[in-house]
Amino acid sequence: MAVTEECSIVGKRLPRADAVEKVKGEAKFILDLAIPRMLQTKFLRSPHAHARIVSIDTSQAEALPGVKAVLTYKNVPKVHPLGMFQYLLDETVHYAGEEVAAVAAVTREIAEEALDLIKVEYEVLPAVFDTDEAMKPDAPLVHPEYGTNLFHGTETQPVPRCRPDGWLALEVGDVNKGFAEADYIIEGTYETPMQHPCSPAPRSVVCQWSGDTLTCWADTQLPFTVWQDLAKCLGMPESKIQVVCPYAVGGYGGKHPDKIATLAALLARRTGRPVRAAFTREEDFIATHRRLDYKTYGKIGVKSDGTITAMQHRMITNFGRDIASLAFMIPACSAVGPCSMLYECPNTKWEGCTVMTNTEDHGAMNGFGSAEGGLCVEQLIDEAAEKIGLDPVGFRLKNCMRYGDRGLDFIKVLTGPVDWGIVGTDIDSLQECLRQVAEKSRWWEKWQGWRTPMRVKGSKRMGIGVAIGMHHSAYLRYSAIVKMNLDGTANVLTQAAEIGQGCKTAMAQVVAETLGLYYEDVDVTMADTKVSPRGFGNIGSGGTSSGITAAKHAAEDAKRQLFDIAADRLKVKTEELETKERRIYVKGQPERRIPIAEVCRLAYQVIGSAVNPRSRQIIDEKTGKVIHAYAVAATIAEVEVDTETGGLDVLRITSAHDCGKAINPTIVENQIDMSLTLSNGWVRTEKIIIDPSTGVVLNPNLLDYKLMTILDMPKMEDMQEIYVEYPCAWGPFGAKGMSETPMTTAAPAIANAIYNAIGVRIRGDHLTPDRINSPLLNQTLYWC
Amino acid sequence: MAVTEECSIVGKRLPRADAVEKVKGEAKFILDLAIPRMLQTKFLRSPHAHARIVSIDTSQAEALPGVKAVLTYKNVPKVHPLGMFQYLLDETVHYAGEEVAAVAAVTREIAEEALDLIKVEYEVLPAVFDTDEAMKPDAPLVHPEYGTNLFHGTETQPVPRCRPDGWLALEVGDVNKGFAEADYIIEGTYETPMQHPCSPAPRSVVCQWSGDTLTCWADTQLPFTVWQDLAKCLGMPESKIQVVCPYAVGGYGGKHPDKIATLAALLARRTGRPVRAAFTREEDFIATHRRLDYKTYGKIGVKSDGTITAMQHRMITNFGRDIASLAFMIPACSAVGPCSMLYECPNTKWEGCTVMTNTEDHGAMNGFGSAEGGLCVEQLIDEAAEKIGLDPVGFRLKNCMRYGDRGLDFIKVLTGPVDWGIVGTDIDSLQECLRQVAEKSRWWEKWQGWRTPMRVKGSKRMGIGVAIGMHHSAYLRYSAIVKMNLDGTANVLTQAAEIGQGCKTAMAQVVAETLGLYYEDVDVTMADTKVSPRGFGNIGSGGTSSGITAAKHAAEDAKRQLFDIAADRLKVKTEELETKERRIYVKGQPERRIPIAEVCRLAYQVIGSAVNPRSRQIIDEKTGKVIHAYAVAATIAEVEVDTETGGLDVLRITSAHDCGKAINPTIVENQIDMSLTLSNGWVRTEKIIIDPSTGVVLNPNLLDYKLMTILDMPKMEDMQEIYVEYPCAWGPFGAKGMSETPMTTAAPAIANAIYNAIGVRIRGDHLTPDRINSPLLNQTLYWC
Repeated sequence: MAVTEECSIVGKRLPRADAVEKVKGEAKFILDLAIPRMLQTKFLRSPHAHARIVSIDTSQAEALPGVKAVLTYKNVPKVHPLGMFQYLLDETVHYAGEEVAAVAAVTREIAEEALDLIKVEYEVLPAVFDTDEAMKPDAPLVHPEYGTNLFHGTETQPVPRCRPDGWLALEVGDVNKGFAEADYIIEGTYETPMQHPCSPAPRSVVCQWSGDTLTCWADTQLPFTVWQDLAKCLGMPESKIQVVCPYAVGGYGGKHPDKIATLAALLARRTGRPVRAAFTREEDFIATHRRLDYKTYGKIGVKSDGTITAMQHRMITNFGRDIASLAFMIPACSAVGPCSMLYECPNTKWEGCTVMTNTEDHGAMNGFGSAEGGLCVEQLIDEAAEKIGLDPVGFRLKNCMRYGDRGLDFIKVLTGPVDWGIVGTDIDSLQECLRQVAEKSRWWEKWQGWRTPMRVKGSKRMGIGVAIGMHHSAYLRYSAIVKMNLDGTANVLTQAAEIGQGCKTAMAQVVAETLGLYYEDVDVTMADTKVSPRGFGNIGSGGTSSGITAAKHAAEDAKRQLFDIAADRLKVKTEELETKERRIYVKGQPERRIPIAEVCRLAYQVIGSAVNPRSRQIIDEKTGKVIHAYAVAATIAEVEVDTETGGLDVLRITSAHDCGKAINPTIVENQIDMSLTLSNGWVRTEKIIIDPSTGVVLNPNLLDYKLMTILDMPKMEDMQEIYVEYPCAWGPFGAKGMSETPMTTAAPAIANAIYNAIGVRIRGDHLTPDRINSPLLNQTLYWC
Repeated sequence: MAVTEECSIVGKRLPRADAVEKVKGEAKFILDLAIPRMLQTKFLRSPHAHARIVSIDTSQAEALPGVKAVLTYKNVPKVHPLGMFQYLLDETVHYAGEEVAAVAAVTREIAEEALDLIKVEYEVLPAVFDTDEAMKPDAPLVHPEYGTNLFHGTETQPVPRCRPDGWLALEVGDVNKGFAEADYIIEGTYETPMQHPCSPAPRSVVCQWSGDTLTCWADTQLPFTVWQDLAKCLGMPESKIQVVCPYAVGGYGGKHPDKIATLAALLARRTGRPVRAAFTREEDFIATHRRLDYKTYGKIGVKSDGTITAMQHRMITNFGRDIASLAFMIPACSAVGPCSMLYECPNTKWEGCTVMTNTEDHGAMNGFGSAEGGLCVEQLIDEAAEKIGLDPVGFRLKNCMRYGDRGLDFIKVLTGPVDWGIVGTDIDSLQECLRQVAEKSRWWEKWQGWRTPMRVKGSKRMGIGVAIGMHHSAYLRYSAIVKMNLDGTANVLTQAAEIGQGCKTAMAQVVAETLGLYYEDVDVTMADTKVSPRGFGNIGSGGTSSGITAAKHAAEDAKRQLFDIAADRLKVKTEELETKERRIYVKGQPERRIPIAEVCRLAYQVIGSAVNPRSRQIIDEKTGKVIHAYAVAATIAEVEVDTETGGLDVLRITSAHDCGKAINPTIVENQIDMSLTLSNGWVRTEKIIIDPSTGVVLNPNLLDYKLMTILDMPKMEDMQEIYVEYPCAWGPFGAKGMSETPMTTAAPAIANAIYNAIGVRIRGDHLTPDRINSPLLNQTLYWC
């Protein structure tokens, strides 16, 4: 299966296209933009989680020298910037920290001073923060006009199959029958925390008008969405709005569009000056979306022979005060994948609901849905294996999904019929990943059996754990233009954002490979909505499988045009031609050739363009069904728990990944390490803590919110990445996006390793030292 | 003939797309760019017109605090930035004012101070400034290695048909026979001055590196050429160079690329900081190219019946120290047009040569070649008319070129066989222009006959004069992309530069008309070589006939794609569809329609693109010959000369123009007024004065170089423009470029009006008051 096309540039560890400029500090980020006369923005935020503004007086603030404009709900358009409920600025605030006013002034200090001069009188309204509370019949309503806290769609945005009570329920086979057939039933509830993406740069934007045209420089994963949102909110033609996305700073799902672009644009229009709006670290924690928190109940039925007879999951998602769009209903659903597609099982039931609370919007973050579902599934599977006495790798090898098995394809859950679909070829690599990771980590030597730590040394217990995982590699519609230059080099126009993930590099490699150019001949232009053709941006691991796919098709379109001319010159048919090393050759006749530069000159201007076909047009040849790509992975973690201090060390992570084809293995490794780090932090320390009585974020800073550092991760040599290349049917040279899959495997592997070390499963909160070392916990240690 | 397509947007006086932002001061020009840490540049200039640098010591300058880099010929690549002879910085300087060193420092003042610290020892070499001197056998050679001052091509850039002695000679028919048949022979030599374009903003550039990528913001008419030149000089792939041309400032032919872009790029690379290089007004006068000065000898043979039997011209062009490219050989040749295509004549001879002198490069400026040839032809024609007693309008109406007559097509002079070609249909409008301008100006009432001023009042003599003229509307290869947005609006990507001429507006009108959108739906993106498809830039009145043509074709390509989808939806064939007011309709069935925005959403992304076909593919249907477009014009000027003070007032200019189709009449009028103003200044006061002994420019400032102001022009109501619309075969909606034709007619019309007023023909210098009032002149007044 692991056959991919022979490549000379794709698959090579070439230096990143952005390496030199980033290392030299020459690369431009939003905060580097300093435009003469640029104003600075500060936001007044609500101290209340739910309140109505009775009165607001900005006159003193406006009179402060240096203040150029103040916006409140009274003088901004009454539009919904992104979500379905929230207004740009609202008379009612729905979470503690929500923007109440925006001030533009000549310095940050003056803007800050002006905030104190704004007089607001609030009528405090009842608020709710916890999903269990919010689901009670008499709970305060986040949006009283909606009538319930359980989101079930709206007239304009219906959610297919969502019941009016807010639940989305899917069942294939018969779980009751399945559980009746089981020898053992394992169940448990897992709560996962609100993790914050913690981008190295909090979000920022600069807006500037020139006549009727707006330029907005945005640090975003989704330039196209920012663009459309500005057009909608400002009532402008899209042609007059230019959203430029220079180098963006790591988003991990968090650099979605925000209302600050629209507010900055309005301030810039009102003042006639460029306006920068940049959040502080504290604001980033309080007022930008974070990973949604889930409560997941899981139940698995197994026979003594190791057959899984039934799987059932019930997931409650805290979505905060708003649903940004139907697409954000998917996070709950994307958990369907690990809950139904990791293991072959004839009877599966999945239920999920999305609950609104008076907290800031929760949303996508690396591995969303799959990670939360996976953390539950992968611990239950371990429990099941223990019950029947199979080792965890062996149990997984026996049951994990193979090509031809049936699973619930989550992408169809919302859009198509509930499909007990045949899963694609790519899922077939799960076994291979498991085998390779077990071999590389020497699992069979290290695993000492259930209830036996891997090693014991004084108060220290070492454990080993395994998990498998999956995440879709989103197939998004995308388009691209490849513009050939007279010297035979090429520029790529795309709305893919270079957000640190290496998209620019991988795209250049793919286009160079396709056109037969050298890597350095291709330059990928940063997203600029005035010139870049439409693309979704970088979400859902879709940059490679969708964005680079479009670029490859555009390069192929350019190549066809070059071949037409070359064929004419060389007096052959186009199918006799091939391209490499900046030349077009007659196949097998190296002396009959023409430089690509010469063909470009003959053509005057070659413009290749392409639009990805609709996903329904991508069909599995064997089954005739639509193919969706999933990146799968298997991870083995080794941990050391100090039962005296409560200290936890993750000693070693070995991880095998099917990325279809590693366009640039170094970059893939970077992505794996990034996602493993997020996964490690998520299961260990990272959590936004909300005051249960006020809804205020209690740890909005990097001192109280404990982010993983290099000291919390294994040493370089103890992070081992393995590639398993099962080419993706539509990906460029077989590649698919995989940057979210590690997130789905490290956390459960670590949790399983901790169980192996000390016999504790902690389902509701982090394994912080105080908890590991608590008397309560020590009582439950199986084998101390 | 004057039938054009019915249009709803094209032909309308819509507000300029750049009006609001320019009026509000929001439009960005190069000098508005202020990048943090940006360095300023100053140039050390040679005091000698021809010298070898014996030694140059920059150590003291480099040691000055604040100085970051100094470039001399010793540390820059030995490349020819644009021309064929000059190096970027050279060991030998070839004109007084040439760059010897470039300093980058933190302020302009420090850079300036550093210039004084550079020690240069020169070996002064013999120099020559005048073409007559330069053509003498023992003249000092500007480029001794070339062996002659008469340019006749090089091995790499041969000039077809140019003789080794530097002369290019063309003859059709037999001029000796023609002169023998004549009853009268009129001859004379006309010298025309070096006019300077005097852009409101002297040239400037900002360069910044990011890794291996260079961004160069340039105020230029030719972003594409700046781009290619940078790639060549820096040895870089074009894909890594981004030349951005924000709003450029009026070039009038003078905003051609220059070495400062490359020098700024090198300084930026060396210092690792952004670098601005901006000329002062003085430097602009001294060190940028100006209109070439000509000496034109003309001779015309006429019969008593008014038939022209022979026309002969011999033109000597002063090209300064270099020929930038073969294209610049054309200025001499473009004079072939008025010398052979304004009047029907069976025997025509044209000779031209290009002479190098120790002065800065001379080159293109509004109406180049045509203006100089026309000034001679149109005065000789008047003399001929006088000789045979025909009035000047009548004589022209009898002899001026009509469709089907034969002329020398100058565009073929260099590239194709000497072609005694049938001129195109567009030339047919000459008679119409003459008729209309005569009527509108009430010529027949005002003209009092030869040797009779129009009116006399005290010391004041009023005269009236007429001239016709022509200039090619360049057909340049060009490409364009039209990107449709989801809301149905469109962005146009082009390398056409908005240099004040209104290109952005006219292009938006044409694209909106083609797609059936509203004017405000279309935005034209400024040239950016990383994303804009190739185009020549804005020269030779080619912006409309070439750049907008490509945009129209790209819009048609987009429309085809939209129609394909709409036809499918509306269940009709694409040929049954039409588009207007943002919708696609089934023709004749207004209720069967679909919004363009909806089609765009269905398509995901429509990208239209087009490349202008080769000019040889544009064939006149009737003759089967390649068509070249000429914009023609007729102008009548009325002047008042005060014979006591020598004062000259231009009272009224009436001007009729064939622009094929006025896409936006207001903009066309602006262009006519601009070019008439340049023409007025050229014949009256504007001239760069070179010291005949040193080659130093004596008037490098706006006090000593007398530019026309609003006071030197007729009042608004006395500037009358007339459109004569003979559609151009390939122009968008029949339009062709016309911004240079007024230049070719105002000057001779004014000269002829002065002759009518005071009986003086001044062939060698301006009609400045001292000359008008000189005793010498007064002696020659016919009718004072």
